[in-house]
Amino acid sequence: MADSGRWYDEVFEDRIRLGLKVKEMLFSERSDFQQVDVFDTDAFGRTLAIDGILQTSEGDERFYHEMLVHVALCTAPSIRRVLVIGGGDGGTAREVLRHPEVEHCKMVEIDRVVVEAAKKFLPAIGSAWDDPRLDLTIGDGIAHVKEAEVEPYDVVILDGSDPVGPSEGLFNRDFYAGVDRVLAADGVFALQSESPVLMSPVFRALQAALPEFFATVRPYLGWVPIYGTAMWSWTFASRTVDPTVIIDSRIDAIEAGCDVYNRAIHEAAFALPGFVQRMLPGA
Amino acid sequence: MADSGRWYDEVFEDRIRLGLKVKEMLFSERSDFQQVDVFDTDAFGRTLAIDGILQTSEGDERFYHEMLVHVALCTAPSIRRVLVIGGGDGGTAREVLRHPEVEHCKMVEIDRVVVEAAKKFLPAIGSAWDDPRLDLTIGDGIAHVKEAEVEPYDVVILDGSDPVGPSEGLFNRDFYAGVDRVLAADGVFALQSESPVLMSPVFRALQAALPEFFATVRPYLGWVPIYGTAMWSWTFASRTVDPTVIIDSRIDAIEAGCDVYNRAIHEAAFALPGFVQRMLPGA
Repeated sequence: MADSGRWYDEVFEDRIRLGLKVKEMLFSERSDFQQVDVFDTDAFGRTLAIDGILQTSEGDERFYHEMLVHVALCTAPSIRRVLVIGGGDGGTAREVLRHPEVEHCKMVEIDRVVVEAAKKFLPAIGSAWDDPRLDLTIGDGIAHVKEAEVEPYDVVILDGSDPVGPSEGLFNRDFYAGVDRVLAADGVFALQSESPVLMSPVFRALQAALPEFFATVRPYLGWVPIYGTAMWSWTFASRTVDPTVIIDSRIDAIEAGCDVYNRAIHEAAFALPGFVQRMLPGA
Repeated sequence: MADSGRWYDEVFEDRIRLGLKVKEMLFSERSDFQQVDVFDTDAFGRTLAIDGILQTSEGDERFYHEMLVHVALCTAPSIRRVLVIGGGDGGTAREVLRHPEVEHCKMVEIDRVVVEAAKKFLPAIGSAWDDPRLDLTIGDGIAHVKEAEVEPYDVVILDGSDPVGPSEGLFNRDFYAGVDRVLAADGVFALQSESPVLMSPVFRALQAALPEFFATVRPYLGWVPIYGTAMWSWTFASRTVDPTVIIDSRIDAIEAGCDVYNRAIHEAAFALPGFVQRMLPGA
């Protein structure tokens, strides 16, 4: 493809854009759900974009995947059975499967084209596709949590894109009720919860909705370089688990292999600036 | 000026760019030192750029100024005399002067045009220009720390732009030797130290150079939305002061008026991801 040298810009509401210079377009296809592009860049290596929105890159994906996965997996009492909704690039499943206690990682991704493009062009991100504990279903994660007959999951991780297109239904009460249905009594639900800086309406809405189902709802913060608003948030939700009580054996086994996540970062991530505190219910 | 509707892009090494849609160009002048632009945006309000590099905006400046100033000013034993090098937009001096213990804030900014543009077009950022404790000199901060006959400063804050143009000399051993000369024995030096993600050579170089003068050199992290690499760093340096021992009376007086900085954020900011730890000397 002949797009070498052009800028691939993610434009947010026609007011801010983050662009990566394209070295080479590797894949560009309209799936049944969305436009899927993979291209190589000097800034961050191979990069996945969906509907024009930068999703992940070889160079920065650990900022996102490590923070999404390990806060939950280093605090949940059991992590035998894990459900990943979305996560088609494979990075979330890879981090989940680094924990030897995980026996079964069910992944439900709606778009086969994302998985196929990731397997072919982003092997450094989805490096655990062949792990026998991974059970990948191409299907609707919303239907899965609402209707599937399953043993309860110890951890549910939502790795969806922004609340547009097929991810729209992942950001509302109905979906959280489904997670509530499939989650074990002392389970943990972790999700990416957007930028409090530029996407504060979505951030506020989900902080307001989750407490209906979970006694503990704690947003935490980090950085994702290709998400052009500096501050990114994830949210930890549980009926019983305190996200600040870390299970030593798990973090000790994981943190040396991480670029971003470690014990100090886990603890620090729950510190919230005043402007974020003021977005929480009751503030 | 007729640039309404165009993108103002900061381009980093021809591989990544962050763009803000311009509502209105307010000021654009080539000073003796650099190109100074001020424009209004939907994303972050009025924004200052120097030599095409986004410096600060009404909408995000607190992320930068609060973190640069209050970590030092809530830990230094005395904060009676403060020196600010650079900081032409006035935001750093404003945060310094929120501390009633500050008796004298000397500010040495090289470019009169930046100060004049900020006074006229960014009054929400530089809102302390008329504070009688502020002593503004248009001049060379490097010469000031190397040669000026001054009483020692309790705190020195370096608020310079990237190490190009007139700021280049602010990122080297000679300048740090000058700071060492003017800093009180138990003083604190705080500086912005660039992005460990995209500007790791500068970050590494200054972490390696500062320990020659200061027994304690501790980088800390936060977010600056218009610095398009997600993670921003500042560095605390001192001969005697521990940056994690916070002076309660000071932070209690300051944090309620902050958008970003507070006690939890102060403590959390010193948590470093592994990839940053590995950039430090001796790692």
